[in-house]
Amino acid sequence: MVFVGERKCERPRVDIIDYNSEQLSEVQDVEVNQCFEQALSDTSVTWINVNGVHDVGLIETLGEHFGLHPMTLEDLVNTTQRPKVEEFPYYLFIVMKMMEFNSTSHAIDVENVSLILGKNVVLSFLEDDGDVFDSLRERLRKDKGRIRHMKADYLAYSLMDTVVDHYFLAIEQIGDRIEAIDDKILDDPRQSDIQDIHYLKRDVLSLRKAAWPCREVINAIEKGESGVLMASNKVYWRDLYDHSIQVIDMVETYRDILGGMHDTYLSSLSNRMNEVMKTLTIISSIFIPLTFIAGVYGMNFVNMPELRWPLGYHGVLIVMLTIGVCLVIFFRRKRWL
Amino acid sequence: MVFVGERKCERPRVDIIDYNSEQLSEVQDVEVNQCFEQALSDTSVTWINVNGVHDVGLIETLGEHFGLHPMTLEDLVNTTQRPKVEEFPYYLFIVMKMMEFNSTSHAIDVENVSLILGKNVVLSFLEDDGDVFDSLRERLRKDKGRIRHMKADYLAYSLMDTVVDHYFLAIEQIGDRIEAIDDKILDDPRQSDIQDIHYLKRDVLSLRKAAWPCREVINAIEKGESGVLMASNKVYWRDLYDHSIQVIDMVETYRDILGGMHDTYLSSLSNRMNEVMKTLTIISSIFIPLTFIAGVYGMNFVNMPELRWPLGYHGVLIVMLTIGVCLVIFFRRKRWL
Amino acid sequence: MVFVGERKCERPRVDIIDYNSEQLSEVQDVEVNQCFEQALSDTSVTWINVNGVHDVGLIETLGEHFGLHPMTLEDLVNTTQRPKVEEFPYYLFIVMKMMEFNSTSHAIDVENVSLILGKNVVLSFLEDDGDVFDSLRERLRKDKGRIRHMKADYLAYSLMDTVVDHYFLAIEQIGDRIEAIDDKILDDPRQSDIQDIHYLKRDVLSLRKAAWPCREVINAIEKGESGVLMASNKVYWRDLYDHSIQVIDMVETYRDILGGMHDTYLSSLSNRMNEVMKTLTIISSIFIPLTFIAGVYGMNFVNMPELRWPLGYHGVLIVMLTIGVCLVIFFRRKRWL
Amino acid sequence: MVFVGERKCERPRVDIIDYNSEQLSEVQDVEVNQCFEQALSDTSVTWINVNGVHDVGLIETLGEHFGLHPMTLEDLVNTTQRPKVEEFPYYLFIVMKMMEFNSTSHAIDVENVSLILGKNVVLSFLEDDGDVFDSLRERLRKDKGRIRHMKADYLAYSLMDTVVDHYFLAIEQIGDRIEAIDDKILDDPRQSDIQDIHYLKRDVLSLRKAAWPCREVINAIEKGESGVLMASNKVYWRDLYDHSIQVIDMVETYRDILGGMHDTYLSSLSNRMNEVMKTLTIISSIFIPLTFIAGVYGMNFVNMPELRWPLGYHGVLIVMLTIGVCLVIFFRRKRWL
Amino acid sequence: MVFVGERKCERPRVDIIDYNSEQLSEVQDVEVNQCFEQALSDTSVTWINVNGVHDVGLIETLGEHFGLHPMTLEDLVNTTQRPKVEEFPYYLFIVMKMMEFNSTSHAIDVENVSLILGKNVVLSFLEDDGDVFDSLRERLRKDKGRIRHMKADYLAYSLMDTVVDHYFLAIEQIGDRIEAIDDKILDDPRQSDIQDIHYLKRDVLSLRKAAWPCREVINAIEKGESGVLMASNKVYWRDLYDHSIQVIDMVETYRDILGGMHDTYLSSLSNRMNEVMKTLTIISSIFIPLTFIAGVYGMNFVNMPELRWPLGYHGVLIVMLTIGVCLVIFFRRKRWL
Repeated sequence: MVFVGERKCERPRVDIIDYNSEQLSEVQDVEVNQCFEQALSDTSVTWINVNGVHDVGLIETLGEHFGLHPMTLEDLVNTTQRPKVEEFPYYLFIVMKMMEFNSTSHAIDVENVSLILGKNVVLSFLEDDGDVFDSLRERLRKDKGRIRHMKADYLAYSLMDTVVDHYFLAIEQIGDRIEAIDDKILDDPRQSDIQDIHYLKRDVLSLRKAAWPCREVINAIEKGESGVLMASNKVYWRDLYDHSIQVIDMVETYRDILGGMHDTYLSSLSNRMNEVMKTLTIISSIFIPLTFIAGVYGMNFVNMPELRWPLGYHGVLIVMLTIGVCLVIFFRRKRWL
Repeated sequence: MVFVGERKCERPRVDIIDYNSEQLSEVQDVEVNQCFEQALSDTSVTWINVNGVHDVGLIETLGEHFGLHPMTLEDLVNTTQRPKVEEFPYYLFIVMKMMEFNSTSHAIDVENVSLILGKNVVLSFLEDDGDVFDSLRERLRKDKGRIRHMKADYLAYSLMDTVVDHYFLAIEQIGDRIEAIDDKILDDPRQSDIQDIHYLKRDVLSLRKAAWPCREVINAIEKGESGVLMASNKVYWRDLYDHSIQVIDMVETYRDILGGMHDTYLSSLSNRMNEVMKTLTIISSIFIPLTFIAGVYGMNFVNMPELRWPLGYHGVLIVMLTIGVCLVIFFRRKRWL
Repeated sequence: MVFVGERKCERPRVDIIDYNSEQLSEVQDVEVNQCFEQALSDTSVTWINVNGVHDVGLIETLGEHFGLHPMTLEDLVNTTQRPKVEEFPYYLFIVMKMMEFNSTSHAIDVENVSLILGKNVVLSFLEDDGDVFDSLRERLRKDKGRIRHMKADYLAYSLMDTVVDHYFLAIEQIGDRIEAIDDKILDDPRQSDIQDIHYLKRDVLSLRKAAWPCREVINAIEKGESGVLMASNKVYWRDLYDHSIQVIDMVETYRDILGGMHDTYLSSLSNRMNEVMKTLTIISSIFIPLTFIAGVYGMNFVNMPELRWPLGYHGVLIVMLTIGVCLVIFFRRKRWL
Repeated sequence: MVFVGERKCERPRVDIIDYNSEQLSEVQDVEVNQCFEQALSDTSVTWINVNGVHDVGLIETLGEHFGLHPMTLEDLVNTTQRPKVEEFPYYLFIVMKMMEFNSTSHAIDVENVSLILGKNVVLSFLEDDGDVFDSLRERLRKDKGRIRHMKADYLAYSLMDTVVDHYFLAIEQIGDRIEAIDDKILDDPRQSDIQDIHYLKRDVLSLRKAAWPCREVINAIEKGESGVLMASNKVYWRDLYDHSIQVIDMVETYRDILGGMHDTYLSSLSNRMNEVMKTLTIISSIFIPLTFIAGVYGMNFVNMPELRWPLGYHGVLIVMLTIGVCLVIFFRRKRWL
Repeated sequence: MVFVGERKCERPRVDIIDYNSEQLSEVQDVEVNQCFEQALSDTSVTWINVNGVHDVGLIETLGEHFGLHPMTLEDLVNTTQRPKVEEFPYYLFIVMKMMEFNSTSHAIDVENVSLILGKNVVLSFLEDDGDVFDSLRERLRKDKGRIRHMKADYLAYSLMDTVVDHYFLAIEQIGDRIEAIDDKILDDPRQSDIQDIHYLKRDVLSLRKAAWPCREVINAIEKGESGVLMASNKVYWRDLYDHSIQVIDMVETYRDILGGMHDTYLSSLSNRMNEVMKTLTIISSIFIPLTFIAGVYGMNFVNMPELRWPLGYHGVLIVMLTIGVCLVIFFRRKRWL
């Protein structure tokens, strides 16, 4: 069993929250053995959150205690997993991807989130410090909403709901950035815009890679017949499923929009080029023939009768003016001016 | 329970229409409690229309009275819902999107429409003032068509039919705008055209986002076995389903056409550029060599025998003319002229 | 019940043909009531053809007599229907699109064709004068082929077969026009070609919009279990289904080809532009430096020793020639010449 | 019954091979009536090969003798059929397309191949002279491989296998031509390359049109339950099915590659254009300002003090040189040089 | 039976490893007959690895001994097979493609890998020397992991897992190369980049061609009911299936990214061209009119009063400066400067 992925925190940390509708006890940063006693209670739900999965020994101890399949353990320490759900006799194993917009790197950070849903226990595994679930903890502590009155499967649903809600945040960020570029490229297309579109496409692609299998996972849970899921909670999973479809809808729409923006950018650029070329052509086409005429009368031939005509100079100026005006009219007819 | 979305009207307003084939009573802008008495009657259909869903308290009162699931209430006050249908034991919950072309902003406005179809009652929830259903109200009042002789499910069908009819209007508007741009881009492609195509693509995308799930919704209703639907009315739902497919067909066709218009625009632009470049090339290629010759005989060398030849000047003019004519012939051969 | 669509003929006209394997009677332009007597016979097939569906009263009279569902009547007078088939207890209702290439407008005309297939009767509704079915009438009159020996479902099949055969004609026309453009764009791409491709794409799109649902319709009839269809005739419907797939195959192939032609056109145009630019660049790059040299020795400085060198002029000419030749060699090396 | 298609040979010709594991008799160019005696034997397989299907009378005689459905006969004389398989009570009717690369026209020739597989008889119909099956005849005569020991269905399989093998040959030819163009377009894109890509795309499209339905046909045969197929031979049909998928895989890959080549071609062209433009811009930008300076001092004003400065001329030359060098440095900084 | 493909090694070589949880015996480069004795044991798993499949005789001997179907033997000596799995009564026949990045040719090498999974025996056939399985051999020898305690199907799984792991390596290589090109094309697009993108697209296409059928193969094995597979090992096949989907996900993502890179490249190039054209236009547009003015006063007319004005020269210089400055302002307003 080997840890696969990037190590994102110093040392793993285990937090436990044990609750039922009447009471809640919370212990932070405990030894892994400590948590086993609490998880046994049948009358309360135990949520064991592990931040940092690179300590293979810790995962093995947990696996042994909760009777996890060796394959599950291997998947837990592999953070490059694809989102999936696997049904085992006594638990459900769920892998999802948390997506967060990183305002420093202007890219989307992906974090692996694994959940084990047992009869009265939920184990959640994060690569990083688990502050993404802070709002959920707060709701548990303050006894807000339904969560304290429900079983472990509702806790798992809430955790996954939090993950999916983060997708909407990431999509909103992308939407804002798209809006910002959108009008600019029609008026004044710049190289930096194509770069931004390029990076946005990447972000949308990684969201897409997380969102499609996520939908499958939630669908499989909703359709599943696992004993750890309560039939009366189907409506929540269905709602989560609707959200995941909405995420996909938005991701696909942004993909389409970004593709269209690229086309628009190219058209804008072509338009610009056209305008530049017209300017060059008009100025060149007017002055190059005139310069030629001036060149002719700048020749030093001894025998050039025109040079000695009293109105020669003014005549040539008038000819030049006439040619210039004709060309301007010609270009205006062609609607280049 | 929190309201999600943009608040589009000042205060919510509740209108009630109660009818059967013999009589119709209508009350506008009532207190929410008032409406409960009327909705109880088994011999008439009650249509409760709520304009503005941001008053969470109002929605909760309604939900309590009509026995709506908490999840339904949450969905009612979330106007960013995706179109969907959910079957509950005593009612059907339907979410759709009303699309209207806004002639001021030249964009398509999207409004959330939720329907609750119970045994003898239909609740409709709009974000805005509900004038989109005015024609339906008129038909009810004037006892036109079948509607007064049918049950609540036919009323729900009529409401959804109205929504889908609005899609056709929006599509027609898009079609008209496409026609307007279409010929222009072949003759005289302009930057503003690409902008229009850009915005039209957006409009088609948002129509598409509403139309596809709408089809699924209607299909699910038609295939569904809910007790609030009468089997004899299947033919109407099937007809509505056909309409929704027609909407999708047209949307996809316009998507294709817009994609093609972009290509045509780029080709037109390239053609233009080609013409501009040819003009520049022809004029430059003819006069630059001639100017060079003039420049040569404008040099001030003391020893330039040609300058003193009696026919030097006229000879050079003839040479220049010959070169010019040759170049014109050359370009004509290349079909550039 | 309102007529929807464009009115394509002055007044509706009803023609009746009644036949069995032994005899055939034909009456043209009859009163609608007249046709009811004939349609009753059990031993013959009655084909009632209605040209022009804008007379709502006529349709209603027919509907009443033949027991058509109100929804069917609404669909009959709506010529913007999507192709579909609907099974009713005593009849099949089929909507198709007739496609005909209009050699005047160089576009494809679409006409709505509705069929009602009853036990011994076929009603066909056309928007226009029904000359598209003339060849079929001729076959009936002359007792050619199987048609006189078969039942009403075979007549319906023959009518639909005629419609599908017209698709092949329209596709052939498109194919011919594609061939005509195809070679031209490689040799000499013109603005009018892109216009033609543009219109051809539209035609293919409208064919596509008719052909795909047409396939579904025929498939539904073949798979259907309606009492008005004879099992022994399945082989004909299957054959018609194969034809409809062939139509789709060809339409999709032409779509691909047209997409590719657009790309080829753009490439040809780019190639042209490249050639134009090369010409400009070669001529400019050769003569602009030479003109500069001539300009230098055209300066009027008092103290320019080269001007007084006896071989100055010829030296400069040789230098210019050398530079010119070097540049030509340079461009030849770059394969621009 | 009318012959549809192009007439590819003078007069039809019928060849018969009758064989079992012990003996083989072969008769060429027989009268159609002659062949009926042999085909009756239960202990041998009779292969009747008809080259040229435009003789409707011949086909009718065959059809009568072997009890073919009228629809089958119509399909036999229509060479524009789409590949398909149809199951009739006593025989299977199979239509395929033979694809052959024609080295003269550099295009792919398509030929219709129809097979009728009966209990102990196989009828094959070709448009042309049947030399495509010569290798199979040779194998039969020399008793090579399994074929002499198997029944009629194995002969049909062998005929179809021969057809599919020809697809691989055609694909290989396309692959070779693609390779030949591929490297050229990166180094030296020419107009003829885009023409070649254009024609290759057409060839791939026609291969595609034959290969996809061919897969369906073979799949339908493999899955079918027709009495003329032996269950123990399923493995051969499965193998043929794998081949047909491989054909599709390769065709789709080449389609992708050709699409990519077009993009690469356009990029190469743009690159070229860029290079051309840079050359023009550098030379023009350097010499046009210098020519202007020379022009200034070529003016004939009486009062131009610089002209009389002793070092004026050399000063101007130095200024010109400085400007030239600065511009070169500027372009080098921009990486244009 | 004929060998199809490229001969990649001198002479075939057979290696045998026989193991159970207690002991392991290994013999390298044995005679083919030698291996039959060992493969019989029921209490151990025998892995026969054949490097080089061009010796048809060797394959036939093996086929005879292990009772392989003639079709399997034909497939074994055809290295152009498409990945597939076939179920025979006593064994499973699996074909896969090994993909390896060749750092010399900078392309992906494809090698055919065939597996025969019997009751206690696995035969693996490679085209080349089988060093790709060295790590697996090492694990067997050192008794690491579960492999020594499992049956033959786990060995087959491990072999296929090794193949799929190599896909990840190849994808990683492609990813690295994409990263390397990605930033370059935004800053400084070069012809070599488009070449690299071109080759990367090819590599991704060949990976795709191997990965999609590979997924089908593993899915078919997982879903299959073959007697040689143990039900308790389903979890491993499911895991392998997840890996194969991950491969496809990544391949499709890279395909998308490469498509996008091509677009970005073209945009970058257009941007460049635009910049080049602007430079040319600005310089030409400023100096060509000025040169014309200088040309006018370089004419040699006798009667040009301006030439004799005392401030004529300086006046003209000021006029020129003014025109130049106006044009610079004009271009700055257009944001070209």
